[in-house]
Amino acid sequence: MDITVAIDCMGGDHGPHVTVPAVVDYLRHNPGTDIILVGLPDAIESELRAIKFAPGPRLRVHAASEVVGMDESPALALRNKKNSSMRVALDLVKSGEAQACVSAGNTGALIATSRFVLKMLPGIDRPALAVVLPTIRGRTYVLDLGANVDCSAEHLLQFGVMGATLVSSVENKKRPSIGLLNIGEEEIKGNEVVKQAAELLRDSGLNFYGNIEGDDIYKGTTDVVVCDGFVGNVALKTSEGVAQMLSTYLREEFRRNPLTKFAGLIALPVIKAFKRRVDHRQYNGASLLGLRGIVIKSHGAADSYAFAFAIARAVDEVRGGMLRRLSERVAGLPHQPENSSSYSQPMPEERPT
Amino acid sequence: MDITVAIDCMGGDHGPHVTVPAVVDYLRHNPGTDIILVGLPDAIESELRAIKFAPGPRLRVHAASEVVGMDESPALALRNKKNSSMRVALDLVKSGEAQACVSAGNTGALIATSRFVLKMLPGIDRPALAVVLPTIRGRTYVLDLGANVDCSAEHLLQFGVMGATLVSSVENKKRPSIGLLNIGEEEIKGNEVVKQAAELLRDSGLNFYGNIEGDDIYKGTTDVVVCDGFVGNVALKTSEGVAQMLSTYLREEFRRNPLTKFAGLIALPVIKAFKRRVDHRQYNGASLLGLRGIVIKSHGAADSYAFAFAIARAVDEVRGGMLRRLSERVAGLPHQPENSSSYSQPMPEERPT
Repeated sequence: MDITVAIDCMGGDHGPHVTVPAVVDYLRHNPGTDIILVGLPDAIESELRAIKFAPGPRLRVHAASEVVGMDESPALALRNKKNSSMRVALDLVKSGEAQACVSAGNTGALIATSRFVLKMLPGIDRPALAVVLPTIRGRTYVLDLGANVDCSAEHLLQFGVMGATLVSSVENKKRPSIGLLNIGEEEIKGNEVVKQAAELLRDSGLNFYGNIEGDDIYKGTTDVVVCDGFVGNVALKTSEGVAQMLSTYLREEFRRNPLTKFAGLIALPVIKAFKRRVDHRQYNGASLLGLRGIVIKSHGAADSYAFAFAIARAVDEVRGGMLRRLSERVAGLPHQPENSSSYSQPMPEERPT
Repeated sequence: MDITVAIDCMGGDHGPHVTVPAVVDYLRHNPGTDIILVGLPDAIESELRAIKFAPGPRLRVHAASEVVGMDESPALALRNKKNSSMRVALDLVKSGEAQACVSAGNTGALIATSRFVLKMLPGIDRPALAVVLPTIRGRTYVLDLGANVDCSAEHLLQFGVMGATLVSSVENKKRPSIGLLNIGEEEIKGNEVVKQAAELLRDSGLNFYGNIEGDDIYKGTTDVVVCDGFVGNVALKTSEGVAQMLSTYLREEFRRNPLTKFAGLIALPVIKAFKRRVDHRQYNGASLLGLRGIVIKSHGAADSYAFAFAIARAVDEVRGGMLRRLSERVAGLPHQPENSSSYSQPMPEERPT
């Protein structure tokens, strides 16, 4: 089966200058995928010319006349920019012309627009963002990463189901283990929501490992780590901060004096191999789960190398049948009516008109 | 002024085998401090004999006949073990015989017992745990680290006041900057509690920097990082996990083949200097703030080297007049009656009898 992915070419800090070369590079290595480049045709075509690549049967340009700004209000983007590259790329998924959409654009706008265009799967209340992270043993999937703050226990259960389905679709694991992120203080084992979520997960039929703590993420204790979006976002950003600090310290120690600089020269191939191994760009691409379509959010600051990983993630999810598996699995989940939305502004287009 | 510190010798995973040598080592380097070793006299004296150190005017043993287990219920420990080393050490602070207590014991029991014995400062609803962490620029203080889950905006404000007072007491900074840990997703700037806390902090007269994200902790963006105990605990444990993973990866890369092993040999002094710099033991000792007395919680698994840093932290707080400064500052803070306690069991001794 050929797979078609719609790319929001205008999203991200660098727009087509990053997305177009990433697509071309991806196509060169992955002949089984078709790509639709969505955005301002002039901008896209000028990038294609710059890298001497012409549109053809596997790569076509689909015009969209507007661009959602990285700091634009999601509600306003949804209401006013009906011909944005983001919206049009999602429309292509909705209509079935593409099986997935990849965007490095404004996260809030992508969530709001995806939700409006594609709608939620029955049984899922809100979309969640899942990322894959490296661990000592391999890799783990963490969700939510910031799409939802103030989650209920039912939401955390839904994250568990979505995470398990994602892992079984793309990692070829039959019964992925699920950990619930909690704290380990002696008497105070987590807040009420987390306690209730543990009960729901225990009764869910999922392979629920139990509570885990922050360090278990990188120990690879479970295949999936479930947490609310506030906690997950803080954990992810904190991890980036630690890694940056440690790499700064290491560099400083190697630059301390001529002797340490010499040691650094000898150790350079090792340090480079280490850096390749921890290069966060190969983990780029968060899955926006719970929608009736596959949507991948690339980091806004991604370069071409990183953006190509987000495309690969979209293709993996299509190939693994993620959407079909998830639809089958979530039907009949306990869920809450959307009365405690974490969005601070109403989304007028979602009301029946 | 001479400073006296009471040590709960029986606390922690290793008890007197770690605490007693740490105290002796501390005294050898810090002649201005007196220490009271609290615990089972036989166990303490046998450790003192093993390291050939005799009690004297600067170091005395104070008997306590019971030990709080590391997994014991805090409520039961508080109710049933009135002669535990933890309780007696806190009693010495209460009576004024010591100006601070250091314990590596059961965190929940230490919080519950400290609260019962010492009482809260007026204006503070609950004790908070603060740790110092390394940053790219220097160091930062983060609270709460797990004493409180489900915090209100008023609690976060109190954490800000306590953190600022701690830093101005021990770091000689007049107006430490305060950051409120939040997430940066475009529309969804944090949950309701955090939004309200930002308003309270803005109006507090503190040097409020504003919202920060997880990576700002290790960038050293602010002197103090305020967050609820759940988020803080996850952030801290996640950091430990990242550091462990990176150090495992680095070791693996250096051990890959004879060539990389040779490079590792050449780089060994640099790697060692790096490890010394990031050695978490030198950050051991969380301040339990908000009480009418100075209490330091050492990591339960601390070795003697780490435990000595917790003692030094206690002495720094006494010397910096932390308690007086904090008492002056918190009187008159807006606060809530204790109706949303994070303790899952009642603390019967706190009820009027």
